[in-house]
Amino acid sequence: TAADSSRPTKMQKLYVYEINERDRESPAYLRLSQKSVNSLGDLVPFMSKLYNGNLEKRLGITAGLCTLIQHVPERNGDRYEAAYSFYFGEYGHISVQGAYLTYEDSYLAVVGGSGIFEGVYGQVRVHQIIFPFKLFYTFELKGIHDLPHELLGTPVPPSPASEPTPAARAAEPHAALKNFTK
Amino acid sequence: TAADSSRPTKMQKLYVYEINERDRESPAYLRLSQKSVNSLGDLVPFMSKLYNGNLEKRLGITAGLCTLIQHVPERNGDRYEAAYSFYFGEYGHISVQGAYLTYEDSYLAVVGGSGIFEGVYGQVRVHQIIFPFKLFYTFELKGIHDLPHELLGTPVPPSPASEPTPAARAAEPHAALKNFTK
Amino acid sequence: TAADSSRPTKMQKLYVYEINERDRESPAYLRLSQKSVNSLGDLVPFMSKLYNGNLEKRLGITAGLCTLIQHVPERNGDRYEAAYSFYFGEYGHISVQGAYLTYEDSYLAVVGGSGIFEGVYGQVRVHQIIFPFKLFYTFELKGIHDLPHELLGTPVPPSPASEPTPAARAAEPHAALKNFTK
Repeated sequence: TAADSSRPTKMQKLYVYEINERDRESPAYLRLSQKSVNSLGDLVPFMSKLYNGNLEKRLGITAGLCTLIQHVPERNGDRYEAAYSFYFGEYGHISVQGAYLTYEDSYLAVVGGSGIFEGVYGQVRVHQIIFPFKLFYTFELKGIHDLPHELLGTPVPPSPASEPTPAARAAEPHAALKNFTK
Repeated sequence: TAADSSRPTKMQKLYVYEINERDRESPAYLRLSQKSVNSLGDLVPFMSKLYNGNLEKRLGITAGLCTLIQHVPERNGDRYEAAYSFYFGEYGHISVQGAYLTYEDSYLAVVGGSGIFEGVYGQVRVHQIIFPFKLFYTFELKGIHDLPHELLGTPVPPSPASEPTPAARAAEPHAALKNFTK
Repeated sequence: TAADSSRPTKMQKLYVYEINERDRESPAYLRLSQKSVNSLGDLVPFMSKLYNGNLEKRLGITAGLCTLIQHVPERNGDRYEAAYSFYFGEYGHISVQGAYLTYEDSYLAVVGGSGIFEGVYGQVRVHQIIFPFKLFYTFELKGIHDLPHELLGTPVPPSPASEPTPAARAAEPHAALKNFTK
């Protein structure tokens, strides 16, 4: 239908938290550079848990690969090139590509998606709260229809104390997306 | 010209088979996790042959990298995060990113392409027939002009017995895309 | 506003040089195949310097990962599957995915970007001048507003003798993008 083939250009914001609860041996830091300092040649596959910005719902996981590009001693951090995806249960996924810096905020490109995110484009800002365990993302999404209500909600302002509700952490049915990825 | 700058939003389906004929030492399972069970840290570069959905034409190859994310013992399989491309000879290529699950169908994002696929977006469903040797893909493509006739045709329903025609397997000139990648 | 939500389909060309000045231990050739000939299983993280096509301005860096797919003995070269980004200081970045061939030109997909490149799509031709130290890229970009003047300019025709101006090589303030990535 004509409606099916439309591609909205309206921008929609989506806020999510990525939290590493240290329950899954992630990240896997592969020191393939064989150097004692983080160096080009190191690779970092990872997966973490994904929560709604209001911290009231478990959404699924993030998953992908970071390539160490450059150790930045004056910032006491590292530059990675990252390619990974955000999984939202039966709603589908969003894939991103770009820079992840451990010492300041950065933007990645939203390169595509599936399900309700089919045809998505835009960018996402990554704000690190506690390296590398707690991150806050602000997506600016275009190319898709209105986001479902359960992905919206007022985000909890990012702080080290931000934690999912107990129901979300336990992924109780009312506090998790249907068929979310564990 | 105005025609050159248009971007169709019509959805077109494209069916292809990815077949590993065990002739090229692929995939390369890199057990960098150093664990006996598939684990985060393992990486799997791969290339396979690509055939039209009607199995009458060799198209080229698939090529890319799978990152092992999670072993899923209750499904006796694995979750990978995948970033790879499909090569169609002089027609160009399609790049995808998303989840590849060895135990059930999944969707990846179509993130872009070149040649006749310049500006493509959409998603692709991957259906595994025989792990990891035979897969059937259903692309839902937007953003491009009408696909050429030789990429269309009625697909052979996926089954373990599905095999390319002898002419396609031999990549005879009438049964292969011009300058296909070997 | 309506203007903010528009997505131009006009194609704009952008020319850049990627130059490896051998000052940063890149690329890191990871011979994970453990074979003496380049083989599937080898991975090549890299970063290089990025200059405007007129060689008068340092733009930033390229950064990403090449996956060795196939050694091509009859061409005395290799096929890689590449996923990487181009960084343009405060202007943002462009991400690409596709084939990099050491023995002939190839096209990669432009899969997205950030900043002024938010929403970008199209393709890029990579022309190798001196393997693997000097490459010339011709981007065909759509989906973005007019490029800023300092990214334009008549490109220097690619040749082994093409070199950045001394001011650009030294990244003097008038010959470098603001807050370019070093």
